[in-house]
Amino acid sequence: MKYDIIVSSGKTRLGEIATTRSEIPTPVFVPVGTRGTVKTLSNEELESFGARIILGNTYHLYLRPGHQIIEKLGGLHKFTGWKGSFLTDSGGYQLFSLKALNKIDDKGVDFQSHIDGSQHRFTPIDVIDIQLSMGADIIMPLDVCTPYPVDEKTSKKDMERTIAWFGISNTRFIEKGGPERGQALLPIVQGATYIDQRLYCLEKLLEYDAPGIAIGGLSVGEPKEDRIRVLENILPHFPEEKLRYLMGVGTPEDILEAVEMGIDMFDCVIPTRNARNGTLFTRFGKMIIKAARYAEDQGPVDPECPCPACRGYSRAFIRHLLSVGEILGLRLASLHNVYFYLNLMERIREAIERDEFAQFKARLMADLGKSNDSV
Amino acid sequence: MKYDIIVSSGKTRLGEIATTRSEIPTPVFVPVGTRGTVKTLSNEELESFGARIILGNTYHLYLRPGHQIIEKLGGLHKFTGWKGSFLTDSGGYQLFSLKALNKIDDKGVDFQSHIDGSQHRFTPIDVIDIQLSMGADIIMPLDVCTPYPVDEKTSKKDMERTIAWFGISNTRFIEKGGPERGQALLPIVQGATYIDQRLYCLEKLLEYDAPGIAIGGLSVGEPKEDRIRVLENILPHFPEEKLRYLMGVGTPEDILEAVEMGIDMFDCVIPTRNARNGTLFTRFGKMIIKAARYAEDQGPVDPECPCPACRGYSRAFIRHLLSVGEILGLRLASLHNVYFYLNLMERIREAIERDEFAQFKARLMADLGKSNDSV
Repeated sequence: MKYDIIVSSGKTRLGEIATTRSEIPTPVFVPVGTRGTVKTLSNEELESFGARIILGNTYHLYLRPGHQIIEKLGGLHKFTGWKGSFLTDSGGYQLFSLKALNKIDDKGVDFQSHIDGSQHRFTPIDVIDIQLSMGADIIMPLDVCTPYPVDEKTSKKDMERTIAWFGISNTRFIEKGGPERGQALLPIVQGATYIDQRLYCLEKLLEYDAPGIAIGGLSVGEPKEDRIRVLENILPHFPEEKLRYLMGVGTPEDILEAVEMGIDMFDCVIPTRNARNGTLFTRFGKMIIKAARYAEDQGPVDPECPCPACRGYSRAFIRHLLSVGEILGLRLASLHNVYFYLNLMERIREAIERDEFAQFKARLMADLGKSNDSV
Repeated sequence: MKYDIIVSSGKTRLGEIATTRSEIPTPVFVPVGTRGTVKTLSNEELESFGARIILGNTYHLYLRPGHQIIEKLGGLHKFTGWKGSFLTDSGGYQLFSLKALNKIDDKGVDFQSHIDGSQHRFTPIDVIDIQLSMGADIIMPLDVCTPYPVDEKTSKKDMERTIAWFGISNTRFIEKGGPERGQALLPIVQGATYIDQRLYCLEKLLEYDAPGIAIGGLSVGEPKEDRIRVLENILPHFPEEKLRYLMGVGTPEDILEAVEMGIDMFDCVIPTRNARNGTLFTRFGKMIIKAARYAEDQGPVDPECPCPACRGYSRAFIRHLLSVGEILGLRLASLHNVYFYLNLMERIREAIERDEFAQFKARLMADLGKSNDSV
């Protein structure tokens, strides 16, 4: 993996990630395909929207179908038919968020499958081996994803473990030939909302020569101000040339703010999860499509949106489909939201290229606040 | 609606239905779109497979979103975005099969919503009005769908009610201007497995000048031999020029047999329902894709099938998706099965045109029996 900055404007950057699979313009949003599929969407649909990279979850794929099967079938790309790049996460976030965790020690994590209760253990080395065996293009190390709120001492311990595990992970990644195959391993900065811990973690991780750095442990329940404070304080210390990946973020507003601060890459379940709950994104903010006022609304979700849902179907019909539980409703809502996110990133990149990001952001933030719908 | 025979070969017929929406080559299979959508598929996908007509269920659409809303929004076509023809059933079958029925009398049917238990009544006139208000192209009258097994006396009573109700339905249909708008109302022959009742019913229904005749009350649990015996005995009495619609049938084998006997139109939930259960149709019979032996099978479901599921995805991946409950699995299985059915009808039509239907059927029946998978 290679990352190049093409243009920067203020703190905001336009760049390109190149993997052996695809060239990915940044800032980029990576749709989440937990079990090898971005929920409800086909590869063809994602490709038609210009998606060049999706995210698979190591934890889920390890449990089902199992990484050995994926390896035997030629890797994630061949298994899923996805021709673009794959980023796989480490499973760290799932171990904590799914409450699957039993025990954590200096060597790794014991956990229980959320499917059948079976016992498993992940060490940093296991997690690298699993991702390498699946042939992911961008690989994430096992980290300790500190929850919020957390005391300073616990956060420090988690952060130090994250640093130690990255060392082990990186050694394994190199030994197993990841760099030669064009794969990348990105370290993850932890340290909760403690700036000194974040900076310490960053400094230690910069001792390794990775092409990018991820920021983990944000969007885990902390107030937005804390997230922004952390980003504002740590991003000036990130080397210019490295890709900056803000994990698990966020809403369109969150993304606009983070791009302004210099973030290059995002992933988040919001567009797909919200779609399935009937919350659609539009230029004028959220639309709660199941609301009664859309029952007889013949217009498309967004009259200016060229996505297949807006071109072929009305608000009333999508509302009907979601109300009665028809899968086409989940599909159309997901298509629209994923298109919205990918198109948002495209417009962000165009605005950076034209050196008009600040104006673009101000206008869009004002528009996004116009919706009367609230969840 | 107009129906024309283009070629007939033995009892087998090649024809065309013309509605104001589409020209539909026959023999035709009508995919079932209960609530205005063929489960999991988009209109675009159906169109790309050459579908020209789909079926909507009056009972379901009456309950949700309600036919008044559909009428207000410009009818079923505008509401759903489906550009081809719509056939709507009468709800009769659902009233019986969903056990929603409370009371049946000479005037109509009292029933309870399967959704919220609310009380409703359908008369033959209501059912015509509902379908006319939704703008269906082919309309079915309220009938009494006799279950199996049934005694001769009960069947006779149901059959006579079906005849009486058709008279009421037809008068209403004409009064309300159905024929002028190019809509069609097709009478339904009932009479269970009693040939004399079937023939009597047919004779009475032929007193009306409908462009086609439907055969109801088959595929309701009777032995296959009984179904074939009924068809063999009644079809010779059907006027050549009228469309023949065998409701609720069936498997690929059932369709081949019925086409040979002179049936022109079919509808059935089998391709979509079986897909969602993981049963796929192939030239060599059923494939139970969740079987363990497909877990590492890199081939497509059918190497010669050009459907999007077979072009882009492996058996192993589709099995994975269905095993973990991913919607893309339901989509790919449904795409494949609906493609299989529509393509089967196309091959049937080509064989009739070449005057080779008997050979085609014999070859395909032998192939369809080759599968080792059983449900």
